[in-house]
Amino acid sequence: MPTVSLLTDFGLQDEFVGVMHGVILRINPAARVVDLCHAVPPGDRQRAAYLWAWSYRYFPPRTVHVAVVDPGVGTARRILCAEAHGQYFLAPDNGMLTLVLREARRPVVYEVRASRYWLRPVSATFHGRDILAPVAAHLSRGITPRVLGPRTTMWEQLSLPPVRRRGRLWYGAVVDIDRFGNLVTNVGAEVLAQVGRPAFRVRRRRMGLVRTYQEVRRGGVAAMVGSRGLVEIAVRDGSAAQLLRACVGDRVTLAAR
Amino acid sequence: MPTVSLLTDFGLQDEFVGVMHGVILRINPAARVVDLCHAVPPGDRQRAAYLWAWSYRYFPPRTVHVAVVDPGVGTARRILCAEAHGQYFLAPDNGMLTLVLREARRPVVYEVRASRYWLRPVSATFHGRDILAPVAAHLSRGITPRVLGPRTTMWEQLSLPPVRRRGRLWYGAVVDIDRFGNLVTNVGAEVLAQVGRPAFRVRRRRMGLVRTYQEVRRGGVAAMVGSRGLVEIAVRDGSAAQLLRACVGDRVTLAAR
Amino acid sequence: MPTVSLLTDFGLQDEFVGVMHGVILRINPAARVVDLCHAVPPGDRQRAAYLWAWSYRYFPPRTVHVAVVDPGVGTARRILCAEAHGQYFLAPDNGMLTLVLREARRPVVYEVRASRYWLRPVSATFHGRDILAPVAAHLSRGITPRVLGPRTTMWEQLSLPPVRRRGRLWYGAVVDIDRFGNLVTNVGAEVLAQVGRPAFRVRRRRMGLVRTYQEVRRGGVAAMVGSRGLVEIAVRDGSAAQLLRACVGDRVTLAAR
Repeated sequence: MPTVSLLTDFGLQDEFVGVMHGVILRINPAARVVDLCHAVPPGDRQRAAYLWAWSYRYFPPRTVHVAVVDPGVGTARRILCAEAHGQYFLAPDNGMLTLVLREARRPVVYEVRASRYWLRPVSATFHGRDILAPVAAHLSRGITPRVLGPRTTMWEQLSLPPVRRRGRLWYGAVVDIDRFGNLVTNVGAEVLAQVGRPAFRVRRRRMGLVRTYQEVRRGGVAAMVGSRGLVEIAVRDGSAAQLLRACVGDRVTLAAR
Repeated sequence: MPTVSLLTDFGLQDEFVGVMHGVILRINPAARVVDLCHAVPPGDRQRAAYLWAWSYRYFPPRTVHVAVVDPGVGTARRILCAEAHGQYFLAPDNGMLTLVLREARRPVVYEVRASRYWLRPVSATFHGRDILAPVAAHLSRGITPRVLGPRTTMWEQLSLPPVRRRGRLWYGAVVDIDRFGNLVTNVGAEVLAQVGRPAFRVRRRRMGLVRTYQEVRRGGVAAMVGSRGLVEIAVRDGSAAQLLRACVGDRVTLAAR
Repeated sequence: MPTVSLLTDFGLQDEFVGVMHGVILRINPAARVVDLCHAVPPGDRQRAAYLWAWSYRYFPPRTVHVAVVDPGVGTARRILCAEAHGQYFLAPDNGMLTLVLREARRPVVYEVRASRYWLRPVSATFHGRDILAPVAAHLSRGITPRVLGPRTTMWEQLSLPPVRRRGRLWYGAVVDIDRFGNLVTNVGAEVLAQVGRPAFRVRRRRMGLVRTYQEVRRGGVAAMVGSRGLVEIAVRDGSAAQLLRACVGDRVTLAAR
C-alpha cells in the first residue's frame, strides 16, 4: 500500500486536486493518496518548503511526496525527483526542495525527463496532472528513480530567513502563522540551548518561554516549543497573530535573561 | 480495510490533517482515513459533539473515530477511548463524547495512558499527531482498547441546550447552521409526536412544518425534519440564516395549532 | 480497487461529505473515494457539468462518478445513472449530465428507482447520503446498472453558452474562473483551427494567443490553451479576473488578424 502525498497551491475550489487523485489511481490503483495541504498561497514556494520539512518524517517509508507550486509551469524550469530520508520528493526546481535536502544525509536528485511516464499530450499549464502525478504513480508502483532522467547535483535553494546572533541577542523571524493564530518562528532547539533563560520580543511585546499552555493564563501570550520543534508565539485560547498584529516575516528577538 | 475518521478544528490551511493521515498510514498501511470534518470552529466542542452524533451511524462497524478539538492540549486533561455502537471514539475528555455516549447502550470508556502506542517524543501542542492518531491506527489494526489504560466511568458532559415545555409551548434552540443556511434545531421526532400540527417561530418569523421542499414556494421559509432527524428551518433556494438573521443559540418556539 | 468520485455543492464545513464516505465504505470497504470537488456554488449545476467534463477522462475505467448539486431534493425530480466513456455517472436529473453525455458515443442512461440499494429511511433533504452514495457503492461492487431501474432516453440538458460566428468575429463566453484568477472560456481547439492568428478581447482588453507563459512578461495578460483544452485568459504571476474585473458569463470576442 504505497503512499503518495500532495502539496499544492491549488486550493480546493477547482477540479485540480481531484484530477490528480484520478491520474494516480488510474496508473496505480493500490496507491494511498494523502492531501498534505492545498492551501499554499499561489506561488509561495517558501511556505511549501516549510510544510514539507514539518511533515515528511511522519509518513511511511517510500512515500512519494509531490509538491506543485509552479508559477513557472510551461517555462524552461526543470522538474526534479529527490531520494532522501528513505522517501521520494517530486517538485519543479524552484526551491521547494531546499529544506528537505538540507536535512538529508546523502540525497540523490534526478531530473525528470523521460516522457514515457507522462500523460500525453502534456498541457502548457498543468504539469501537476500531466507530469508530476503520473511520475509519482509510477514511483509508487516501484520504478527506480534512475529511469526518470539524469542525476543532478544542482537545485534551486531558497534564501530562507536565518537566525543571527549579535552579542547577547539573537534575531529570528516569524516564518508561518497557523489556523489558530500561532506564530511559528525559525528559532529551534539548538538556539535555545545556547541561551540560558530566554526572553522573547515580537512587535514590541515581551514574553517568556513556557513548556505547555498549562503555565499560561487564558488570554496570556507566551513562547513555547511547538509541534515542529520550533518556538511558537501563542495566546492561550486566543490568536497571537491578532493580538500582536503579526505577519510572516516579522522579527523575533531573543535575549538571555 | 478498517476505517479511521477524523474530526478536528484544524481547518485545511496547515499541514496538521495531512500529517495525521501520514502517522496513521505509517502504523497501519491498510487503514482507510476519512476526513469527517475539519471546519469545527477553534475550540468549539459542542459543534464537534453534534457532528459526531449526526455521523457515526453511517460508518462501518469497528470504525475508529478521532476528534481533536483540544484547547487544553498540554494541560492535565485526560484522553479517552470509548467503545460504543460497535465503534471506537477517541477524544480529549472535554465533552465531545457527550452525545455519542448518551445514545449508547452499554458504553465502555478507557483512559488513554499506555504511552507505548504513542509517538515519541510527545509534543506539548499536537496530541492529535502524537497520541490520538497513533492510538487510532493501533486500534484499527485490532488491539483491544483494554490495553490503552484503565476503565473509567466519569467523563465530561457538555450542558447542551434542552427542549423545554411550558403549557402549550415548547422551547428549543438553533444548534447548527449548515453551508446552505439551514438552521438545525434540537427539536426531534419525539417532541413532534407530542404536538398536533406544530407551528414554529424563530426570530419573530412563523412557519409551518412541511414534509419536503416540494410544498414550499421558491424563497419561502418552512420547518421540516432534516437529514439528522431534527427539525430544520429552511428557505427553498435560499438561506434561512440570511433571511432570518439567525445564529446558533437562537430560540425556536413550537406551538400546537 | 474501484474508484468512486464525489462532486458536490456541500462545501467542507459540515459533515455531509464525510458521511457520504462512510456510507460508501460501509457497503464497499474496498472502494477508493476521491473528492473531485465540493466547492460548486450552491445549486450551480452548470459549474458541476463543466467540472465533470474536465475531469472524468483522468479517472480509472469503471469509476463511479457521483454529483450532488440538488436544489430539487425531495421534489419529484428523477435520479439518473449514465453509462458512458466506460464509466458511471450518478446524478439528479437536473442537467449535470449535459456535457458528459454530449461527448459520449453510445451512452446508456437508467432511472435510479430500485430502492433496495438505498438506505432506509430516505430523508427528505439528503439523497446524496441515502440514495446516491449507496447506489454508487453497489455499482463499485459490480452490480450492473440495469438493476437500478428502467432505461430512459430523455434527460435534462442545460443550455450552455455557445460560441457563435458573425462574419470575421467569433463570440464566446467566460465559463469558469479558477483559483488563480484565470478565465476559462468555451473557445476550444476546433474554433481556433478556423481562425488564422486570433486576437482576443475580454472586457475591452485585447490580447494575443501564446503557447506558454514563457512568452508573457510578468503581469502581462494573454490567451492560451489551458489544461481543459479551452482558451484561458491569464495573467502571468497575477489574476486575470482581478485585472480585468471579469466574471463568469462575460463575453469573449475572437477575431482573425
